[in-house]
Amino acid sequence: MTIEILQKSSLTPSIAQQIRSLFNQLNSEISQLIIDKVLVPDNTIVFAVCREGDELIGMAAMATYKVISGHKGMVEDVIVSANHRGKGIGKKLMLKLLEEGKKQQLNEILLFSGHHRLPAITLYKSLGFQLKNSGLYTLKVG
Amino acid sequence: MTIEILQKSSLTPSIAQQIRSLFNQLNSEISQLIIDKVLVPDNTIVFAVCREGDELIGMAAMATYKVISGHKGMVEDVIVSANHRGKGIGKKLMLKLLEEGKKQQLNEILLFSGHHRLPAITLYKSLGFQLKNSGLYTLKVG
Repeated sequence: MTIEILQKSSLTPSIAQQIRSLFNQLNSEISQLIIDKVLVPDNTIVFAVCREGDELIGMAAMATYKVISGHKGMVEDVIVSANHRGKGIGKKLMLKLLEEGKKQQLNEILLFSGHHRLPAITLYKSLGFQLKNSGLYTLKVG
Repeated sequence: MTIEILQKSSLTPSIAQQIRSLFNQLNSEISQLIIDKVLVPDNTIVFAVCREGDELIGMAAMATYKVISGHKGMVEDVIVSANHRGKGIGKKLMLKLLEEGKKQQLNEILLFSGHHRLPAITLYKSLGFQLKNSGLYTLKVG
C-alpha cells in the first residue's frame, strides 16, 4: 500500500475513473468535477491518494489559499473505499496532507465534518484538530 | 461610497496600511499576511473593498478552489469599520462576492461564522446561506 501525492503528469484514464467511482461512495448525488479540471496550474491543491497495486483505495484533498488571516489549507473529499476501512488509511492520507501543509508553511488547516461522522471526527481530533465554536454556512450557486 | 474588486495593479501603500488597520479591528492577535502576498497570480481570490473617498471602510475576501466535490468559494475576512456599521456595507460586500461567484460559475460558496456573531449570521441567512449540520475543525500548523 502506498500513499502518494497525485500529480497531473501521472494521471491516467484508469485513475480518473477510479477517483470518480470512489467519490460516488461518499456522495453520488452531486455533480463531480473531473480530476483533470482539479489538477490545473491555477488551482493550488494537494491531492493525496492511497493505492494498492493498480487499485485506488483512498483519497484526500487539501486546497490551499492565502487571505489576510493567513495561508490556509482546506481539507476536502476524504474518502476510503468501503472494503478497506479500519486499516488506518484515512489517518495515513491525513498525515500526508499535514506533512505537505508543514512543508508549505501553512498557518492553519481547516476541515468540516458532519456531526454524525463519529469515526472521522475521532480521527481528526487524534491528529490535533479542534472543533471551533463556529457554524458552517453554504450557498449553492450553480 | 463604492464597492469594488481590489486588483494588484491598484494597490497602494495607503490601501495596504488601511487593510492592516481594518483587520486589526477583527483580530489583532493573529499575524496577518500582507495584501501584497495575497494578491498574487497563483492565489485565486476575489477581494472586495468598500471605499468612501480615500478611506477604506470595509472588506470581504473569497478564495476559490476546485476539488472533486465542486468549484467552491470560501468567504473569509469580512470586516466593516466600527464607525460604519449598520449601513448595509457588509451586505453590499457580500453581494459583490456572490456576483463574482456567479460569474465564475462556482457550484457553492462557503463561510463560517462564530455562533455568537448574530448580526453577521442574520445577514448571511438573508442572502440564502444555510447552516450545515457540520462542525468546523482547525489545526494551527505554523
